[in-house]
Parts: sequence; C-alpha cells; structure tokens
Amino acid sequence: MKRLNLFYAQSGGVTPVINASAAGVIQTARAHPKIIGKVLAGQNGILGALREELIDTSRESRRAIEGLMSTPGGAFGSCRYKLKSLKDNRAEYERLIEVFKAHDIGYFLYNGGGDSADTCLKVSQISEQMGYPIQAIHVPKTIDNDLPLTDNCPGFGSVAKYVAISTREAALDIESMCATSTKVFILEVMGRHAGWIAGASALAGHERGDAPHIILFPEIAFDRARFLAKVQQCVEQFGFCVVVASEGTSTADGRLLSDQGERDAFGHAQLGGLAPLLAGMVKDELGYKHHWAVADYLQRAARHIASQTDVDQAFAMGKAAVELAISGANAVMPTVERKSSQPYRWRVGTAPLRRVANREKKMPRRYITKDGFGVTAAGRAYFQPLIAGEAYPDYYKGMPRYTTLKRVLARKRCESWSE
Amino acid sequence: MKRLNLFYAQSGGVTPVINASAAGVIQTARAHPKIIGKVLAGQNGILGALREELIDTSRESRRAIEGLMSTPGGAFGSCRYKLKSLKDNRAEYERLIEVFKAHDIGYFLYNGGGDSADTCLKVSQISEQMGYPIQAIHVPKTIDNDLPLTDNCPGFGSVAKYVAISTREAALDIESMCATSTKVFILEVMGRHAGWIAGASALAGHERGDAPHIILFPEIAFDRARFLAKVQQCVEQFGFCVVVASEGTSTADGRLLSDQGERDAFGHAQLGGLAPLLAGMVKDELGYKHHWAVADYLQRAARHIASQTDVDQAFAMGKAAVELAISGANAVMPTVERKSSQPYRWRVGTAPLRRVANREKKMPRRYITKDGFGVTAAGRAYFQPLIAGEAYPDYYKGMPRYTTLKRVLARKRCESWSE
Repeated sequence: MKRLNLFYAQSGGVTPVINASAAGVIQTARAHPKIIGKVLAGQNGILGALREELIDTSRESRRAIEGLMSTPGGAFGSCRYKLKSLKDNRAEYERLIEVFKAHDIGYFLYNGGGDSADTCLKVSQISEQMGYPIQAIHVPKTIDNDLPLTDNCPGFGSVAKYVAISTREAALDIESMCATSTKVFILEVMGRHAGWIAGASALAGHERGDAPHIILFPEIAFDRARFLAKVQQCVEQFGFCVVVASEGTSTADGRLLSDQGERDAFGHAQLGGLAPLLAGMVKDELGYKHHWAVADYLQRAARHIASQTDVDQAFAMGKAAVELAISGANAVMPTVERKSSQPYRWRVGTAPLRRVANREKKMPRRYITKDGFGVTAAGRAYFQPLIAGEAYPDYYKGMPRYTTLKRVLARKRCESWSE
Repeated sequence: MKRLNLFYAQSGGVTPVINASAAGVIQTARAHPKIIGKVLAGQNGILGALREELIDTSRESRRAIEGLMSTPGGAFGSCRYKLKSLKDNRAEYERLIEVFKAHDIGYFLYNGGGDSADTCLKVSQISEQMGYPIQAIHVPKTIDNDLPLTDNCPGFGSVAKYVAISTREAALDIESMCATSTKVFILEVMGRHAGWIAGASALAGHERGDAPHIILFPEIAFDRARFLAKVQQCVEQFGFCVVVASEGTSTADGRLLSDQGERDAFGHAQLGGLAPLLAGMVKDELGYKHHWAVADYLQRAARHIASQTDVDQAFAMGKAAVELAISGANAVMPTVERKSSQPYRWRVGTAPLRRVANREKKMPRRYITKDGFGVTAAGRAYFQPLIAGEAYPDYYKGMPRYTTLKRVLARKRCESWSE
C-alpha cells in the first residue's frame, strides 16, 4: 500500500467541537505513519484546496493538536462555498484533482453538513471519472442536527446543552422578577429548517409550569392567535412565560416569520430578528413587559459549556473517518448509532454518501407535543444523553485556554488558480 | 442584647450570585442564634414587607441554603419597586415599621443597587423618626458595577466573565468564517449608564488585532462616521470586526441610540435592540455580511460560568452585612476594598449609605483608550482579577443542579395592606 497524504477541510458554519473532529483525524492519521503521510488541511475549507493553500499539520505540536479538543471555531478556517454541479463547473473539480495529485493526496476528508456531504460525493465521482483515485469520506458536523442516517450530529449536543442551560438560567431570572417587572422572555435560537436546537431547550424544565412554556418549531406552522393565547394563559397561570423560538419558525404558507430577504452563498435565507418581532406582537396585543435575547454565534461557539458526549462523538467521527479511509472505504460517512437511551449506549456506524447528501432530517412529529408547543417524553429521551457531561476547557487568568495553530502552508506545486 | 429577627430582601435586577449573598446572610445569622432569631426574607423584595409576605428561612435546610451559593436568579423573588420619598408616601414607610414591629425585626438587610441603597437609607431614617430602632444595612449587588465607594459590585465579575468568554468564542467563530461569510459581529451587552460590562469584553483579547476590535461605551459619545470608519479599517486589516456595544451607547446630545421610548418602574428607559440597529448601519454603509447577538438575561443569569472571585465576594458581602448589624452599625454598606491587583488582594470595607445612595460610578476615562474604542492596560488590570476562577455548579444529567427553596411564609400578624 503506497503511503499517501490526507486532505482535511472544515466546511460551513463551525461548531463548538468541530476541532475535536480535526484532532480525531490528525491523531489517528499520525498513528498510521506507514499508510498516511501528512495531513494537509484546507485553509478556509475547500477554498484552500482550490487555491492550493494547504496547512501542513505536521508542523503542529502534539500539544497543539490536543488543544483542538477544547477549542471552538474552525482552527483551519471554514467557508461557505458550494461547488457547483459537475456539469456546471467541471473546472473546479479538475482543479481539486490537480492539487491533490501534486500533493500525493489519496484521502479527502470533508467535515461538514448536508451541502458538504454532497461535495464530498462529487469529489469521489470526479476522481473515478478522471482516473485519479481519491477516497472521499465525509465527517459529519452540524449544530442543526439535520443530517439523515446518523442518530445525531457532532456539534448539536453542545449547542443543545448551552440552550437548555441558558433557558433554565434566564427562567430563574424572570421568575424572580415577574411580580413587578418582565413577564415574557423570548430566546431566539438557531435551526434553519429543523427544530432540534429549540427542542433541546425542553430539558430546562421537568414539571408542568417549568420553562420553557412555549417552543416554536419550524416543523409547526406558526399561528399568531394561538401563540398569543398561549402566552397569555402562561402568564395568568404561572406569572411569567418563557418562549424559545427557532429562527426557522414559519407560517402555514411556508414563509419565514423573520425572512429579511438576504441570501447566503448557498442560497439560504439569512435569518435573525425573530425574537424582537415576537416581542413586538406580545407587547402590542397583550401589553406585557418583555425581554428578548438572540444567542446567534454565542450558542454555536460556547465551548466553555460543551457536552462531554458531544466532544467524544466529534472525536470519534474524525477517528472513524481515517479508519474508514485506511480500510479502503469511499463515498461514506461515519455515523452515530444509538443502541439505547437509558443507559445511553452508542457506537460508530457508516452510511453511504449518496443517501446522505442534500437530505434534511426534521424533528419527528412524535417528539413534539400535540399542541405543537412542547417536547414529548420520547423527545426528551432522545435529547437527554446528548447534553450529558461537562467537557470543560482549561483556564488561565479566568479565561479558557483556546489553542491557536501555527498554520504553516505547504509549498505550492501548481499554477495559481483564478476563481 | 435582645434577640431580634432579621429581614432580608432582594431588589432590582438579579445577578448570577445574589443568592450567594443571601447564603452569606442566612448562614452568618444562623451562627449567632443568641443575637439573631429568624431570617425573614421578603417575598418579591420589599413588596414582601409591605404585604407581610415573609419567607421563613428557618424552614429551609442547611443544604438548601448551601445550594444558594450556586443558584442564579433571586431565590426569594426580587422586584422593581421604588419607595417614594418620605414626604410623598410616608404611609409606605410606616407600614414597613408596622410589619417589622409585628415580627420583632430589628435588622433590615437590603440587597440591591443604587436605588435600593436609597431605600435602605430611608428605612433607617424613618425608624429613627418613629422611635422604632431598625439597623438598616445595604448589601451591594449590581451587574452594572456602578455603585460608588466599593471597588466593584458582586454580580459584575460573573457577567464580565461571561461577556469576555462569549466575545472570545464568537470571535473564533467569525474568524473561521470571514474569508467567505460573516465579516462583522456585534454583541449587545447590558450597562445602562456605565460601560463596565462592555469594557470587560476587552479581556477576550491580548494582542493588537484580537477581538473585540471596537467597544462602544455609554461614556463616549457615539459618532456614526467614526464608528463605520473603524469597522471598515478592521475588516480591511484583520479580515473581520467584532463589536461589543453597551446598551447605553448614546450620541453627543445624550440621546440613547436604542431608546424605544418605554420606561420601567424607576423611570429608566427600557433598552434593547441596539445590535440590530448597528448591524443595519454596517450593512447600509459598508455592505458587509454581519451577525448580531443580544445576550440580555442570558448574561446576568449565567451562573454556569460564574467567577470564583465574584461568588466569594457576594458571600462575603452578605456575611459582613450581618456582622455589621451585630456590631451595631446602621445606614452602612459593606464594600470591596482592593489592596492590590497583582497579586489580587482585597478586604471588606464599609461605606455610609448617605454617600452611596443615588450615585452612579462610570468607567473612568483613563480605563478607555484615547480613540474611545478600547480598554487601556490600567482598565485591564482592574477587570482581570474580577473574572478569575471558575465556580462551577454541580450537574445532574447534563444540567446544573439549581436550588429551589420551599418558601414557607411566616404567619401574618398585621392587617392586610392595600397598595
């Protein structure tokens, strides 16, 4: 077996634990020096391959790679850049193969969500067509938890934990104040098309009357009158009302409540601003004093309160991807297979990329209560193990010790690339 | 010395550690059973005294009181209710004395900010005028850190830590993405008239180019053109720009950028929505892709990442207040006196309430850089020890174990009170 280099890149929105997957990839590759040469990481994701900006991870110390286990963000840079179809832009795929050839790269590991799984599949296809063998393995990652065929996605558990804890904490705050002050609190969370993140906030409470009192899911059509009636009922019954709203909350006609009309590079709507919109409704119709929060990047960067389950699984996915590559697999993705919820047991599985790419997994209806505002016992049983354990980073002078890599680029061997 | 009961109440916006002060009060009172009888806590702050809704803390277990050390929110309920002046509403003060008399209360401990210090002072004055001796001690608390005569206020250190960590984490996120996506991130934080919280975000970075690149303080008049020029300069130089904006950011004419025209019970403007406003400016003028977050209650309830210094000082203030009461003091407040910054050494001091009430301490100009967008070395030296140490709560199944008290009310002895 010829020793080949491995290309690794991070894609799309980052997570609190995507770097733990990178650590899994690099440490496992280093453990097989006869099979895998260097791990070359794309600077700013797949753009690093197109531009031949390849970070030579062999220049990073063992300690720095270990530090990735507890560092949020994307240590090599990520990007929102979707390769076009083979038909529309074959030149991009050919460029990738040119760079991979020049750097003896035989393994393509792409760490991302649904869009990236699609790119990964295409790289595997073009490699076949061009007769240059590349094993393409997708490393799953997305805080949205919407990839199919895996029980959950690395990144989600930590965001779920952050949102559940933040909801509980804010609820204690508002409960203290509601006699004379704020009666309604609205927290807007991420989740473009699937309500997993909003749903996880249900773990903030246990008993009837506990916050969150209302969860708004993209899966359930928003009905203004029903929403306001429920807010009023909660305030009258419990003295206050905590609402957790997914940014993807939509009306029955499929229109996002918060669509600002902007689009990102993938053509997705750029969301935000739902919380103040809902707060305005509450104020206008019910007159309650309100507060609202938009967690935005804070939720998906909050490595300080990452879930241990999540860190373990993120690392395991990176490790498994390299092991799959070594075993000769191609166009696959390691997955998390849940064996049982209580006690929580899981193992690494695999899924073919053609069944993963461009498919979104939404919250099943049976995880959402009949009234559409809460999470069922089955949903809680699903969420609970994913937030288990506190994987604290080390601290120095009151701040987490997050790792910065040297990011030394490998010497260029190709002509420069014009985008 | 006659054994008397002690009244304790929480006032105004809660903090991640106000309950640690409550624990300090209750545990210290329990250690002096010959002098102090019961600690009766006002349900929903001073309203509990007016309505004679007094929580009998002797019914709470030692373990529950210990649990207060790591529970955010206000365990007895707080309120936004400002007593009028003695002249305008003498009846309220007389009612307080009536309830205190009926319950053998000789000590009035009020845990709050500047407005509460004023109330506390008035209680001490009316008690003298009415010939019923009450020792009134103020226990300092405010995330805004704007009380005079104390080096810092319990509550602030934990919010400072949360904001510094969140800024650092979000900066790692945006730095990963800025090549192809978000270039400007705006975090709105609390701080009505003083920029202490925004200023603490400076601890997120160390070197030139580190986030936050721009801090907006209420102390520095906002200048749209200068702000936008600085954003553009950062994006061009560093690839991205992180802005931390105090909700109290105002223009040169003293008008709040974000004033929605609403007022709370104290006549203060109800703020919020500055971050989307600034994001709109950036988008309209510079066209950069942006994200924004509004931490709101999340920041002042985030007990999960409280500062150990802050928890220690919150407890110490509660303890010192009881010790001051026992020593015969009246109309005073324990304070934090800084002896040195490096190594950090502090001790408990005292300040007379007449010099505390209704005075706000702003960020000194020497803590703010010349350009008005950053924090000087002197400012960093002030902030740093206040965020030191991680006072983690215990966890169960992935969620913090926060304490709920039984809150059994003492039997009423007075006529009911009509507000």
